[in-house]
Parts: sequence; C-alpha cells; structure tokens
Amino acid sequence: MNAFAGAAAPTRVPTPKLDTWVASQDFDKPTLVIDVDRVEEQYRALKAGLGHADIHYAVKANPAPEILKRLTDLGSHFDAASKGEIQMCLDAGARPDIISFGNTIKRASDIAWAHAAGITLFAADAPEELDKIAANAPGARVYIRLIVETSEADWPLTRKFGCDSDMALDMLDYAKSVGLSPVGLSFHVGSQTRRAEMWKPTLDQLSVIWKRAKDAGHDLTLLNIGGGFPAFYGEAIDTPTDYAARVIALVTETFGDIPQIMAEPGRGMVAEAGVIVTEVMLVSRKSDRDVHRWVYLSIGRFSGLAETEGEAIRYQFETDRDGDATGPCIVAGPSCDSADVLYEKRPMQLPLTLTSGDRVLIRNTGAYTSTYSSVSFNGFPPLDVVVI
Amino acid sequence: MNAFAGAAAPTRVPTPKLDTWVASQDFDKPTLVIDVDRVEEQYRALKAGLGHADIHYAVKANPAPEILKRLTDLGSHFDAASKGEIQMCLDAGARPDIISFGNTIKRASDIAWAHAAGITLFAADAPEELDKIAANAPGARVYIRLIVETSEADWPLTRKFGCDSDMALDMLDYAKSVGLSPVGLSFHVGSQTRRAEMWKPTLDQLSVIWKRAKDAGHDLTLLNIGGGFPAFYGEAIDTPTDYAARVIALVTETFGDIPQIMAEPGRGMVAEAGVIVTEVMLVSRKSDRDVHRWVYLSIGRFSGLAETEGEAIRYQFETDRDGDATGPCIVAGPSCDSADVLYEKRPMQLPLTLTSGDRVLIRNTGAYTSTYSSVSFNGFPPLDVVVI
Repeated sequence: MNAFAGAAAPTRVPTPKLDTWVASQDFDKPTLVIDVDRVEEQYRALKAGLGHADIHYAVKANPAPEILKRLTDLGSHFDAASKGEIQMCLDAGARPDIISFGNTIKRASDIAWAHAAGITLFAADAPEELDKIAANAPGARVYIRLIVETSEADWPLTRKFGCDSDMALDMLDYAKSVGLSPVGLSFHVGSQTRRAEMWKPTLDQLSVIWKRAKDAGHDLTLLNIGGGFPAFYGEAIDTPTDYAARVIALVTETFGDIPQIMAEPGRGMVAEAGVIVTEVMLVSRKSDRDVHRWVYLSIGRFSGLAETEGEAIRYQFETDRDGDATGPCIVAGPSCDSADVLYEKRPMQLPLTLTSGDRVLIRNTGAYTSTYSSVSFNGFPPLDVVVI
Repeated sequence: MNAFAGAAAPTRVPTPKLDTWVASQDFDKPTLVIDVDRVEEQYRALKAGLGHADIHYAVKANPAPEILKRLTDLGSHFDAASKGEIQMCLDAGARPDIISFGNTIKRASDIAWAHAAGITLFAADAPEELDKIAANAPGARVYIRLIVETSEADWPLTRKFGCDSDMALDMLDYAKSVGLSPVGLSFHVGSQTRRAEMWKPTLDQLSVIWKRAKDAGHDLTLLNIGGGFPAFYGEAIDTPTDYAARVIALVTETFGDIPQIMAEPGRGMVAEAGVIVTEVMLVSRKSDRDVHRWVYLSIGRFSGLAETEGEAIRYQFETDRDGDATGPCIVAGPSCDSADVLYEKRPMQLPLTLTSGDRVLIRNTGAYTSTYSSVSFNGFPPLDVVVI
C-alpha cells in the first residue's frame, strides 16, 4: 500500500499563477483571489486517490460560480447545504441527480422545491426530518447521519449533526415506514483531519452499525464518508492523492466493497487555490513596556476570517518585509468590535519593520472565507472575490 | 439624586406597534423588524438623562437608513467606525461636524476622504495613527482612547482599543508636536454595563490621567464616555433616563464640569426597538436517552446572532406555544457549521410542543444583528431588515 509512503508536504504547493497576478495588481480593499486551475489540479489529485468514489464538492466551502462551473465540467458531484446552494449548482450546469441535499436541517418548503427541481438524495438525522422529507419529497433516497466520536481534527465537530448509534436502526426502519428509501449512512470525521490514519477509529465504529443494519435486512448501498480532507496551514499533510487513496483503502479494509461511496471535500478542494490580499492598518504598542506589538489588518473575523475563532485555523501570512528581524504580534481586525482579534493566545512572529499600508498575503484562504464575510459590519464592505 | 431611586425594569418595555405588525405578516425568511418610533422614544429617554452631553449614536449597532434619518431629525450626533458609516450618516442628512470618526484603526486614505468631507474629530490610541491623521487631516481635533480595567460588563472589552495610562501624556504631547489639536480623552466601560454604579471605578481611574494631563498644560475640553448603555436581555436594568442621569452625575462628581461630554449609545439606543422573526427548522433528540432536545432555528450565529458567541448575550425567545410545559433545549442555527450553536452550556427552556415550522420571536435584537449577518453563508441569504 504505497499510499503509506506518500511524502508529507512540509511547505505549501507553489502557486505561481496566483503570485504573478497578485503582484501585478493594486487592491483597494481586502480581496480573495482564486486560481480556478489550481482547483482543477486539486480535483484531479483527489479523484486519482478516491478511485470509484464520487466527489461531492461541499459547495459551502466556496460557491464561486467559476469554481462550480469548472467542477461541473470535470464531472464532480455536489453536496449542497441549502436551496440557495442547489440553485447555484444548477446555474453552473450540474444535473440535479448529482446534487445531494446534505444538510440535516431543511425547511419543509425547501425540500419540496428541491424535489421539484429533481434532487433525489437527502440527509437526515431525526424522525421529524424524515417526516418532512416523506411529505415533501415522497419516495426519496435518504441517508442517515450518525454521530461519531472524534478528537483529532483541528476543527472538531460538536454533536450538532447526526444521531447516536442507538437510534440508527430505528431511523432506517422509520424511513421505510414513511415510504422513503433509506440507502445508506453518513458521518464526518471533523474538518481538517490532517492524517488519513485518524479516520480508522471512526470507520471501525461506523462499520459496527453498518453490519448491524445489513443484518437487520436493510439493503445499504451508499456510504457517505463526508469531508475532513485537509488543507495546508503550516503543518505537514499528505499529498491529496496519497491521503484520499489511504482513506479509501481504510474504508475497503473496514467495510468490504460498497457500491456507492460519496466523499465531500470542501476545504481540501479549494483552500490552497486562494489567497487573501489585505493591508496593515496600524501597528502599535499599548504601553511603553509592551513586548508585543498589535498589528491591525484590513480584514478580520467578521469580514472573512471567521475560522480564526478560538485561534482554530492558523493562516500563514506573507509580507514584502519577510526576512527582516521579527517580533511577536497580536493580530486583529479593523472593526470596532473588541472580539475581532485573530491571534492573541499564540502571537505571530512578524517583521519589526511592518507598518501601516504594507500589503499582507494570507495564504490558503480559498475555503470558508468569502461567504462567512458579513454584509457590512462596521460599515466595511464584504470580502471581494476575484477568480482568475 | 433621585436617579438612584429609578425603579429597575424587571420585564421588557412593551412594543405594541411591533407586535401588531409582526402578527399581521407572513415571513419567508428570518427578518429583523425595527420600530423607528421606539428608537425615537429611547433617544428622548437617554437625552433626558444625559442633559448637556451630546449623544453620538454608535452607527455600527444598526445603520438602517430610517434610524439614521430619524436620529438626525432629533438632533443626534454620530460615532462612525468607517468611511462607509460616515457616508451613511451624510446620506441621512447629518452635518459632518457632528460625526466623529471614532475607530482608532483607520486607513490613511479614509482619513483623507473624511477630512475632505468635513469630518473634524478623530480618535487615536497610537503614535502611528496620529501620524496618519496629521498627514491626511492636518490640524484635526483628536481624542486619545485609554484602556481602562473593566470586569463587570456582559460583553467586556479586550485590550484591542486604547493605550495604557503611562502613554497618555506622551500621546497628547505627540499629537501637538505633529500639528493636531488634542482636545480630550475617551474610554469604554464595556458593552452592556448593566448598572450605572459599575462606571465608578473606571471614572476614578480615568480622572487621575485627566488631572495629570491638565496639570501638564493640556487644555482638555472633551470627555468621550463611550458606550456601555444596556439593553434589556432578561436581567433587570435601570430605565434609560435614570441610568444616563446617574452616569452623568458620576462623571460630574469625579471630573467637575467638562465643556463637552460625548456619549455613544448603540445597543442602548436600538436593541429594544427590534425583534427578529424566525422559525423552527427541526426539533430532535440525538439519542433515545437524551434529556435535552435540539432546536434548530432558521437563524444562527453566522446569519445575525453573532453575539451569542460564548453565549455572551442571551436573547429572549417567544413562541405561540408559550404556556405549554417546557423542557431544556440546545438551540442551534441552520447551517452545516458545527460551531453554529447558540445556547448549549446553559440550555433554554422551551415548550415541549415546539415543532418545525413554528414561529419564534427573538426579542430586543435591534443592535449588532443585521450588519453581522454573512453575505451568503451556506447559501442562506443575509438577515432581512424591515423598518416600520
């Protein structure tokens, strides 16, 4: 199994197209620049590892029309969280039968709308949701999302999604009883699960339920392994092909052959294809005795960097002054909100020469940034997006 | 001093106009409804207590054009966080000389723009910011923001804004040396400071610096007491007039007469004028043994309720089933983000009969909701705003 031997990537993959374009432009406001060719490379790399498993791109990571169009052309399927996302996929040319409505929390009228639009596959984790699907998308295929215990992801999940394993069989039975077609199970190992081996305990746990359901007469044909595919944020990760191949190998070792496997990379598909261009607004010290400087950027937690909450995702910064002597900095956003601080518990080392007006590149920010941006918090415009 | 005797309001002020209008409407998506007459009442009540102090409404709390227009007509001044907010005030008919550019983090080009637009008063807490103001708004009036130690506010501030007292005199001196007019000091006691007495330690601390600066020859004429004026979120607060009068009495006791006092209510001006209309998307249990239900609403942390982060602000919910037996619920938003959970550590008691499709009113949500809403997180539209 040579996926084991995949060399860990100690540094990010170069993005010469992005770098050249960004260097040639002036920016008047914080801007996310996406290289859609880099998305294509990543799709091909993941697909090479995933083999016959279907990629359902998690649209919520970045629904830029150019990304959806390119992925549609490449044959990607889609995982949509809402009516709005389904519409965006359809607008990009995706057929409805390759779009799953993967949110376990759906408005009844949105289910009816999706059903009319041709969507045939829905997620559920509660009897009330099955009732809504049965009433509004009669006969639809459903998969049941289960809670699995995870602890190794960088952005671990709460118990918000899924039901406990003790409910799984009842849910499958109930789905049948209301006329739905319960075809499989889903789970999520947690976003940014950095090594493929971290999947093993989760897969072991799920396979017990899978077997129990088959033994009870449920003809399960679909396993949705969710997301968790990592992006490079400074810590070594496997190459996408090696990572994906190893995950699929683990699935096969644990479950045997499964007719339909769905994988839902979002972050792992688009994060590394994007860079945010921002600038320093102010550098200051709070006291003559302060060791740390405060560096205020033109982007913050409410204008695109929501995943810095709790300092969970640690982005990599680049400046034109890299190479100068550095010192520790608390990094904050530009708004008048005192909670708009990005990194304080673990300050960043930034050049001592950094000053207001300096450009800062925030690398690997193609996922979970543009759509988190607020409409006009503190009167600042939302994050601009340019796809090249 | 009969402000001491102000009766604490144990329940929220009735809003019959809002209630009648909301009851008569259907809503297809989460909507914030604002009663601008209620904003006017609150302005008058605060102004009655503040006396000769100027109200600079903190636009960031809610920049709805109808609110800015009404406050302009009433004679309010404004505290703006950005070029965008200044423009909104000007659009509402406000004169530039009653708008302060209160963010200590400003882009140089925005300072130049504001200066050209007639803005004359700027905040600063760092030498680099004074340099930017001197270069782009030569001769402007500035006030220096200081860090004060607070611990009693419900949404306490970090050290993000202000400089320590040891820098205050140097900042005033430096402002003069670069040709600016340093006219005063500012501070912030922390958002949602529920009782006026909580201001006393802060005022005492600041008055030492104020006196030291006067002794050093600085002709300070302006004290900006910031915000902190509370809204009703379930815990008793004083009436706005009593609260404001008591704060001004404390200021006068501590500082003596000051020619110009600025107060910057935001939350205390508009929160109680708004109600969010939302609906239940799903009610579920994760296990047959679960004591708690999960209640998923059509609005969450990323679509307007950002201030539930850390469960800091605890909104009050009303449903048509109030009066039925209740049980503990974890309350979450509709997105596929596992961090989109509103209340979990302290579950809410909600009716056992609650079911998907039920309307839920979230009271006193007129502040810090609409502009925090993300542009299209998970494909959900931003919070709709209707002003009546």
